[in-house]
Amino acid sequence: MRDTLLSSLQWRYATKSFDREKEIPAEDWAALEEALRLTPSSYGLQPWKFFVIRNQELKDSLVSASYGQGQVAECSHLLVITVKRTLGQDDVDHWIEVIAETRGVTIDSLAFFRNMILGDVVNGPRSVDGLGWAKLQAYIALGNFMTCAALLGIDCCPMEGFVSERYDGLLGLAERGLTTAVVCPTGYRTATDKHALTPKARFGREEVIETIL
Amino acid sequence: MRDTLLSSLQWRYATKSFDREKEIPAEDWAALEEALRLTPSSYGLQPWKFFVIRNQELKDSLVSASYGQGQVAECSHLLVITVKRTLGQDDVDHWIEVIAETRGVTIDSLAFFRNMILGDVVNGPRSVDGLGWAKLQAYIALGNFMTCAALLGIDCCPMEGFVSERYDGLLGLAERGLTTAVVCPTGYRTATDKHALTPKARFGREEVIETIL
Repeated sequence: MRDTLLSSLQWRYATKSFDREKEIPAEDWAALEEALRLTPSSYGLQPWKFFVIRNQELKDSLVSASYGQGQVAECSHLLVITVKRTLGQDDVDHWIEVIAETRGVTIDSLAFFRNMILGDVVNGPRSVDGLGWAKLQAYIALGNFMTCAALLGIDCCPMEGFVSERYDGLLGLAERGLTTAVVCPTGYRTATDKHALTPKARFGREEVIETIL
Repeated sequence: MRDTLLSSLQWRYATKSFDREKEIPAEDWAALEEALRLTPSSYGLQPWKFFVIRNQELKDSLVSASYGQGQVAECSHLLVITVKRTLGQDDVDHWIEVIAETRGVTIDSLAFFRNMILGDVVNGPRSVDGLGWAKLQAYIALGNFMTCAALLGIDCCPMEGFVSERYDGLLGLAERGLTTAVVCPTGYRTATDKHALTPKARFGREEVIETIL
C-alpha cells in the first residue's frame, strides 16, 4: 500500500486538459461520492454540500465564471464543494439528532457535546469567521477527494480560480444559504496534455519537514 | 481499490486514546511524510512546514496547550501542520527557482506564472487574508494525510482544539514566521477506546450530494 499511495500521488497532477470522450464509470464515481461523504470534519459538523455537475450546458456556462478554464466544461464530473454561509443552532441540533439516531442514544446524553459545539462554532471563537472555518473543512474534503481519485486512477484539477458569486448564482446557492468554496473538475487527462509529462516540482523533504526527537 | 478505500475511511475515527507502547514503523512514517510533501496546493506554493514531534517531554508539555487532550502525549508521532504567517515575493521567487531547477527551464520562461502568483497571493485578492489562505492549503495536507494514514492502518485524531500561541511559543515558530494551523496526533488506538466501536455518524448521501444532470 505504501508504494501504491506514493506512486498515485506522484502520478496525479493538476490536469490542464480533460478527454471529453472519457466518462468516469458509475462505480468509481459512487466510491468517490462515498469518500466525500465520509470525510472527517471538526465536531463532525460536515458544513458542506457537494454538487456534481454533469449537465453539459451548465458546465459550459461555468467556464467564463472560471476565468476561461476549459477543464470545467471538458471534464466528466465537475465537483463543486459548497459550504454553509452561516452555522446556527438548527445545524447543530440536526447534527446531534443524526448522531443520536446513528448510535441509538438520547439527545439528552449528547447535551455536553451539543453545548461544546454551540459555544465554539455558533456563539464562540469559531463563529467570528464561521465561513472561513467552514471552508477549512471543505478543504479536508478536497484533500481526501484528490487522494482517493488518484488511487482510482482518476484525474482532477483543484481550482480556486473562479468567481464564487457567479457559481453561486448559476447553481442557485445563495437562496439555500450556501456558497462555493472550491471547484474540482474530475475525469481523465488527454494523451496530449504536456503538463502530465513535466516532472513534479516540490520543495525538498528537509525544507518542509522538521522532526523534533 | 474502491473497497479498500471505503473500508479504510469507515475504519478510521478521531482516536481518543492512543497506545503508548505502539510506535509507527519507520517505513510507514516515511511514506506519510512523503505523502505530506506531495500534497497539492494552490499555485504549488506549499505555504507550510510540517513538524513531527517525537520528543516525549515536548509532547507532554503540549497537552495543556491542547485543552488537556492526552492524545498529544500518548501518540507515536505528533504531526503539527504549520503555515507561513505572510507570503512575500521571496517565497514566490524561491518557488519559481525550484520549478525551474526541477523542470530544467529558465526563470524567465516562468515570468508569466510568477506574475500571476504575485498579483494574487502577494499583492492581490488572496493577500487580503493570506494567513487564512495558507491555512486552507494546510487543510488539503490534513485531508490527504488522514486518508493515507487510514490506508496504512494508522490511527490519528485531527485537532483544532489547541492554543496556537502556546504551540507557536513551545515550537519557536513566531521567530521563523510560522504559526500552527492544525494538529494531528498519529499512532495506534488502544484496545479499550470505546469510541472505536461507536457507529460512524454522517449525514445521508441525499443530504450532502446533489447531482445536476
